[in-house]
Amino acid sequence: MKTTFKLIVLFIAISFVSCKQTTSNSIDNTTSSENNHPSLILTQQGVAAIRANLGSIPIFDKTLAATQKEVDLEIEKGFDVPTPKDYSGGYTHETHKKNYVLMQKAGALYQILDDEKYAKFVKDMLFDYAKKYPTWPIHPKPRSYARGRVFWQCLNDSNWLVYTSQAYDCIYNYLTEEERSTLETDLFRPFADHISKESPQFFNRVHNHATWGNAAVGMMALAMDDAELLDRALNGVKVENFDPNEKDNDGGYIRKDGQKIGFFANVNEPFSPDGYFTEGPYYQRYASYPFLIFAQALQNKQPEQKVFEYKDGVLLKSVNALLNLSDVDGDFFLLNDAQKGMSYYNSSLISTVDIGYHFGGNNPGLLSIAKKQGEVTLDDAGLAVALGIKAGKEEPFVKKSIELSDGADGDEGAVGILRSDDLELVYKYTAHGLSHGHFDKLSFALFEDGDEIVQDYGMSRFVNIEQKGGGNYLKENKTWSKQTIAHNTITQNEKSQFKGKYDIGSKFHSNTYVFSSDNENVQVASAKEENAYPGTKLHRTMVTIKDEDYRNPYILDIMRVSSEKSNQYDLPLYYLGHIMQTNFEYNKLSTPQILGKSDGYQHLYKEASALANGENIKLTWLLNNKFYSYSAITSTNDEIILGRIGANDPAYNLRNEPTLILRKKNAKDALFVSIIESHGTYSPVTELAEDAYSNVKLLEVVYNSEKYTAVKLVMNTNTAKVFIISNLDNSSETAHKLEINNKEYAWKGSFILTEIK
Amino acid sequence: MKTTFKLIVLFIAISFVSCKQTTSNSIDNTTSSENNHPSLILTQQGVAAIRANLGSIPIFDKTLAATQKEVDLEIEKGFDVPTPKDYSGGYTHETHKKNYVLMQKAGALYQILDDEKYAKFVKDMLFDYAKKYPTWPIHPKPRSYARGRVFWQCLNDSNWLVYTSQAYDCIYNYLTEEERSTLETDLFRPFADHISKESPQFFNRVHNHATWGNAAVGMMALAMDDAELLDRALNGVKVENFDPNEKDNDGGYIRKDGQKIGFFANVNEPFSPDGYFTEGPYYQRYASYPFLIFAQALQNKQPEQKVFEYKDGVLLKSVNALLNLSDVDGDFFLLNDAQKGMSYYNSSLISTVDIGYHFGGNNPGLLSIAKKQGEVTLDDAGLAVALGIKAGKEEPFVKKSIELSDGADGDEGAVGILRSDDLELVYKYTAHGLSHGHFDKLSFALFEDGDEIVQDYGMSRFVNIEQKGGGNYLKENKTWSKQTIAHNTITQNEKSQFKGKYDIGSKFHSNTYVFSSDNENVQVASAKEENAYPGTKLHRTMVTIKDEDYRNPYILDIMRVSSEKSNQYDLPLYYLGHIMQTNFEYNKLSTPQILGKSDGYQHLYKEASALANGENIKLTWLLNNKFYSYSAITSTNDEIILGRIGANDPAYNLRNEPTLILRKKNAKDALFVSIIESHGTYSPVTELAEDAYSNVKLLEVVYNSEKYTAVKLVMNTNTAKVFIISNLDNSSETAHKLEINNKEYAWKGSFILTEIK
Repeated sequence: MKTTFKLIVLFIAISFVSCKQTTSNSIDNTTSSENNHPSLILTQQGVAAIRANLGSIPIFDKTLAATQKEVDLEIEKGFDVPTPKDYSGGYTHETHKKNYVLMQKAGALYQILDDEKYAKFVKDMLFDYAKKYPTWPIHPKPRSYARGRVFWQCLNDSNWLVYTSQAYDCIYNYLTEEERSTLETDLFRPFADHISKESPQFFNRVHNHATWGNAAVGMMALAMDDAELLDRALNGVKVENFDPNEKDNDGGYIRKDGQKIGFFANVNEPFSPDGYFTEGPYYQRYASYPFLIFAQALQNKQPEQKVFEYKDGVLLKSVNALLNLSDVDGDFFLLNDAQKGMSYYNSSLISTVDIGYHFGGNNPGLLSIAKKQGEVTLDDAGLAVALGIKAGKEEPFVKKSIELSDGADGDEGAVGILRSDDLELVYKYTAHGLSHGHFDKLSFALFEDGDEIVQDYGMSRFVNIEQKGGGNYLKENKTWSKQTIAHNTITQNEKSQFKGKYDIGSKFHSNTYVFSSDNENVQVASAKEENAYPGTKLHRTMVTIKDEDYRNPYILDIMRVSSEKSNQYDLPLYYLGHIMQTNFEYNKLSTPQILGKSDGYQHLYKEASALANGENIKLTWLLNNKFYSYSAITSTNDEIILGRIGANDPAYNLRNEPTLILRKKNAKDALFVSIIESHGTYSPVTELAEDAYSNVKLLEVVYNSEKYTAVKLVMNTNTAKVFIISNLDNSSETAHKLEINNKEYAWKGSFILTEIK
Repeated sequence: MKTTFKLIVLFIAISFVSCKQTTSNSIDNTTSSENNHPSLILTQQGVAAIRANLGSIPIFDKTLAATQKEVDLEIEKGFDVPTPKDYSGGYTHETHKKNYVLMQKAGALYQILDDEKYAKFVKDMLFDYAKKYPTWPIHPKPRSYARGRVFWQCLNDSNWLVYTSQAYDCIYNYLTEEERSTLETDLFRPFADHISKESPQFFNRVHNHATWGNAAVGMMALAMDDAELLDRALNGVKVENFDPNEKDNDGGYIRKDGQKIGFFANVNEPFSPDGYFTEGPYYQRYASYPFLIFAQALQNKQPEQKVFEYKDGVLLKSVNALLNLSDVDGDFFLLNDAQKGMSYYNSSLISTVDIGYHFGGNNPGLLSIAKKQGEVTLDDAGLAVALGIKAGKEEPFVKKSIELSDGADGDEGAVGILRSDDLELVYKYTAHGLSHGHFDKLSFALFEDGDEIVQDYGMSRFVNIEQKGGGNYLKENKTWSKQTIAHNTITQNEKSQFKGKYDIGSKFHSNTYVFSSDNENVQVASAKEENAYPGTKLHRTMVTIKDEDYRNPYILDIMRVSSEKSNQYDLPLYYLGHIMQTNFEYNKLSTPQILGKSDGYQHLYKEASALANGENIKLTWLLNNKFYSYSAITSTNDEIILGRIGANDPAYNLRNEPTLILRKKNAKDALFVSIIESHGTYSPVTELAEDAYSNVKLLEVVYNSEKYTAVKLVMNTNTAKVFIISNLDNSSETAHKLEINNKEYAWKGSFILTEIK
């Protein structure tokens, strides 16, 4: 009843507001500047609906209560607007970050609860900024290619503006025209100018940095009703001269010659038609917020822009793609620079999911993710989700095997995710991924039930942990994490793919060869890479096989290398866990040796080695009380290196985790074939080991030509299977016939797995 | 109704049984041998009560249903009694183990459900054993000092008999007299003889092995009603000659000269009056089952023995002691040989808790443990627990700080456990702990919220993982795990305490100096060790301090060393996690070096080192997204070694975990003072680091004499405290006065912590 009463008062208040003249710059001439606030993430209709439903929408009510509690506490404590000084993790950085989050929340609370103390909190803080900002020079820390004024980089300044524009929108009507004028003149316009006009190397890019910058300027433009600024956000800053060779401090190019800029360019280029973001899910998660929050604001304010329909609805598709790039626990897969543990519980994913639901056709699967997240955004989108959950519309968000194309046109390779029972195989055959890309074409990682079994190292960075290089990228990110040998793929002659050069790597991409997930018993992802090492062709086929004889599916991995000249090929397996047993004798060195001189090899210790006798090798390890085995075909004199990460690591920046490297020397062509199994369990409570041994008895190459490769798998039940792949024809329609060991195999399509009777 | 009917039938059946003549050996002449079965863990009254309550006692019903399902499946599959061949982890070992567990369960099911298929299953299996056992020679695997016939060691044969005796008791009345005679003559008596008369080196000990042996023979004696065997179980085998220098394959003495033997001796000696088992909780967990199951059987069959009153009720006290030796998750602390992850969810703890409840005065705290365990024993004790839970009598089992004395008379040192909020400090100043003891006097381990932060390595063994040395003790257990340098305590001159010799170590024990936990803000455990290194005295005081300025308590550690001559002292800190920062510059070696030649040093790599400049050193590390810091006082030229476990480990048996060793050279007396804090958190989802820095500004020794040691603690809030301990007078009544830096401190008792204004 109380809410209803307040609502009536509000409507009366609104109708009595005198219509003020809009500025000449105004975006929308049909309403007064006061009449159309709030209008970014909260709308007037939305606020009315929220107030009407309060108390009966549990997930919204819970979020509101938690937010109110948090903000009340901070209001009581008082705020600080310190002179900028620190890198991330330091006091001034973290305080300014806290401030913008609090302003955004307080703004929403003001609208929803209609309690002026929240508006006053935002106003007081904004005026403190407006007083100090003009006195602050460029941030004193020099590391960034585009330094901010509040933070060490324009990126964080943009974060500030994206949040603050929402707060400003919410308290717009609470302020007098004079107050608004002061804030806009002393704070918002110079702030927007600094990250745009004064930092074109930051603003005029296609990059997550520029996305934040564009969204920041665009949202403040919408809040201030400033058409010039909005144009800048959507189309970039007009700059006469720019140097196409200029790079940022991560080594990424600023801008290609002739490249389009501005928000729409930033939507168009990095997203494939499937919604895959070329930098990978870690950065998509980060960029997702400005993409979607600005899109939402634009949709609310200028629906005629049809931002959610742009590029066949790619922003909404990206929500689905991003969620599919997470494991069963919601943790994102590691692709390119990425910190482990980032998940869809991150706050930016709350708005991603809510906006995806509200503007993307109310997909009931998103409601189950929102329910797990346990909170919603305090806006129209969050209300829609809360009402959906309340109405019991929730359905499970089912993640199946999926291939997500890369490249603006979807023709620059892909990520293939094969899901089979509890296993999730992430196979990467993408484009480079901009400045955050790693030189790891045809690499993979394997997860079981949310735990990484065969790892992608991720990045060398402890985000926001100031003790570790200010929380920024560590030098080992370049010397180790990006290098090919740090990944589960081929390094040729101890040199990284594309010579480890971004300039070269960013020109090429791998190509999908086969992706087939219709038959859940035999799923195949196969891809080719022909540019990583000129003159050498790589073709890797990964197969998940469900076999009713065993509790878990297993992975067959066929890496086929053909080259014009003789090379050394290294194929590492970054297994995580403790070695239980090998079937080969190795010589453990008394002290570890450094494996090589450059390209990441300088960070690896060789702990032990063995020479293969041409028979299958097997490694069994234990992780999280589960037994895993790797079985691989070898040739006589292949070298097996048991290694560990951590050499040339003067500040303990790296994790000392193990690897097994299979090395083939003086080979033109090479075929690496292996099986990875999760076959058993151990309980330290019952002390019982179940199925502690591998089920693979023998792996054998029974055919290998330019046209076909065939591998025989004999299991310990003595059943034998053969897997054949056509190496040149990937059509699913072609009929093939092949005789192997006097037996004829005939099948349709690019591959077959069949039992040998 | 059906149950009631069956009950009546049963009573009628019993009353119609003709009274048979008991054998001359009979334990109890007042009833027929059939009338008093079952009588070990199930009694006739118990069975009646269980049947009467079935369907209304959820935890019991659930256990029963699960057991029935499991046994039914096995009955369907059929059983195997294979010729013994393997070590633990191998097929024959695991199968015989499975068999005895199944027989025990099937026996109970027969009694409770009155379904003859279960009795038949037990009978069939027993007859298969009775047919084969006489043909089996000593087990072929040679590793044990006391080889079994079914298993590689008598220990496992004893396990078999402990379980099988219960099964036999349950189906006793189902068998004809002739059948019983066959089983007893061909199987049970020779079986009991083998582990007792034929293996006195196993049976006549005070050791968990002998406990199992005694219980095995004793329980079968009670089941068969054989007074001679029972006497053997209670009092040992009379043997004329025994060699007091004889040792088992773990290096433990078989028996001291003049030592009492048999079950009561095994209760008396290893348990202190507080119920602490000298081998530590891992082995107490293992021995707990035979102790309590046999005690239960003895209580049921011969209450006049008053077994639960023996030694002032020590068996029941041991239940409480054992549960107190677990962390918040129920995982046992690591003391001596112990595998990580063992917890009170282990099956032997189900009976421990249930028997403890049923025979120990119905402590309602045990019901909450039983509820967590989620199952009960299918016997009278389990029924009591189920009825207690049903009646809502459950209360939390509160674990507070506790000191548990060691030694048969409680005067051989102790384990001190200080609990303060989420921290649990386990400080060891015990006797040696028999053959499973480690040379680690005055060592400690630290847990937070169930995670080990500063670790005790535990044992070098992968129990029942056949690939790792048959699942048995690995040689690294002796060369690494037991050695002093593997622990968080002093190693003098790179030699283990007591020269690493069991013969010497087992003669001595440390001594409690102070244990005070009344004031939750300042809890102290202090102990002295004067025999580990002749001529050197060690006195370590560990304090948990709650300080309202900080979110967590912290640990002050004062290790005072005084010696007659100059030595090198090494004090390691086996922190678990990733180094974030040190406040000292270290020189990282390009490749690790082996730290030493023997006494465990040969298993440590030196990765980096630094020379102290006399100021405090600080190490901050990250584990499970929590920040920890170690701050320590140093003297100029103290050496700081950053090391890692794993050298001389040819088969990857060791875990490659880190340590920091503080080394003082050429010192007679030395004082190691440090603080360990858990001060902050990190979230990979929000990427926020909170309180990432240590709160300790300065640690300083402000006084140190024979009589007193005083340490000043300055925190980053600039509050300063001083902790003073009286080194010679541990009375809580003595009044002390001490002037430090012109300020007088006066207090009563052995220590004081006071703020310096």
